Amino acid sequence: MMTTVNTTLNGFDLEAIENTVGALKSNPKIAEFKFKATNKWESGPRNTSQIQGFYGACQDDTTRVTPFECSTDMPIVLDGTDVAPSPPEFLLHTLASCMTTSMMLLASANGIKVADVTIRVEGDLNLNGFLGLDACILKEYEQIKVSIDVEGDLSETEKQELLTFAKKSPIYNTILNPGAINVSLHA
Amino acid sequence: MMTTVNTTLNGFDLEAIENTVGALKSNPKIAEFKFKATNKWESGPRNTSQIQGFYGACQDDTTRVTPFECSTDMPIVLDGTDVAPSPPEFLLHTLASCMTTSMMLLASANGIKVADVTIRVEGDLNLNGFLGLDACILKEYEQIKVSIDVEGDLSETEKQELLTFAKKSPIYNTILNPGAINVSLHA
Repeated sequence: MMTTVNTTLNGFDLEAIENTVGALKSNPKIAEFKFKATNKWESGPRNTSQIQGFYGACQDDTTRVTPFECSTDMPIVLDGTDVAPSPPEFLLHTLASCMTTSMMLLASANGIKVADVTIRVEGDLNLNGFLGLDACILKEYEQIKVSIDVEGDLSETEKQELLTFAKKSPIYNTILNPGAINVSLHA
Repeated sequence: MMTTVNTTLNGFDLEAIENTVGALKSNPKIAEFKFKATNKWESGPRNTSQIQGFYGACQDDTTRVTPFECSTDMPIVLDGTDVAPSPPEFLLHTLASCMTTSMMLLASANGIKVADVTIRVEGDLNLNGFLGLDACILKEYEQIKVSIDVEGDLSETEKQELLTFAKKSPIYNTILNPGAINVSLHA
């Protein structure tokens, strides 16, 4: 009797993940990434970032022939032209997408099959903080609510593991914990 | 002799900004926004967020007829298919775009004319943290470097003001300061 070994789970190539983890264990420097984005102001609240090269796996990555482009604008009610999402909305996308990817990668590496995932994120932002109209109000998101819906034949233990995996997300932890940001201006 | 009052600066409508600030002062609740995003997992490291409605100016905004869509993937070297930027790259776009918009909005409200802005962002992320391969390494971005280039006929005082304005960005402050994130999982 022939046995077929399925090396794909949830769309992840388990052999590739295993090889990557093996490589990281033999040379931890492979895991040191430096990501980059370059944003150009256009007019008013419209600007566009280009995302292309990065450093990782001990080398500059040059595989992307053309850069990805992401544009932002502000909604009409905030005096924008609404041709693209606003920066606060992009943050929620970034958080949700990172939690989805982190959860599904770690679920797959741990043999948990998931049928469907939807993550809804809401964030409270009081613009009186940014505008300096009330010194008692935070400039940043006051709170963010993340609601994860998963479907599949999952035990209670597996559901708890999925929640733990989602909270390992680098972006979740970047927002949760204080960050080190160095800002310089050149003219 | 006729005098023409120019109410636009850096592409911002100064009268609209003044009206918005006036409205906020008379009713601070107008500034309470709740932004939203819904992310759906597709396969492996690919997922897409929809961004459409939000609450702000004391009502649910329904002006967007169709949702914005943002897709994420992972680069080839991280076992992805690289059809879209990765979540960590989206974070850098979000930070840069928010700092650009914040700086230019406040510059315009304060009468500072700027000819050109480019913001370059780089972030160091060691994936051994996320993967749990080294408990001493942070899961989040270890540090982020923001380099702002401005062009224009600017005094030293104005350059310092621009740096101050950029640091008022809600997303800069969301990353800089510890965040309150509530996560729940439903199955």
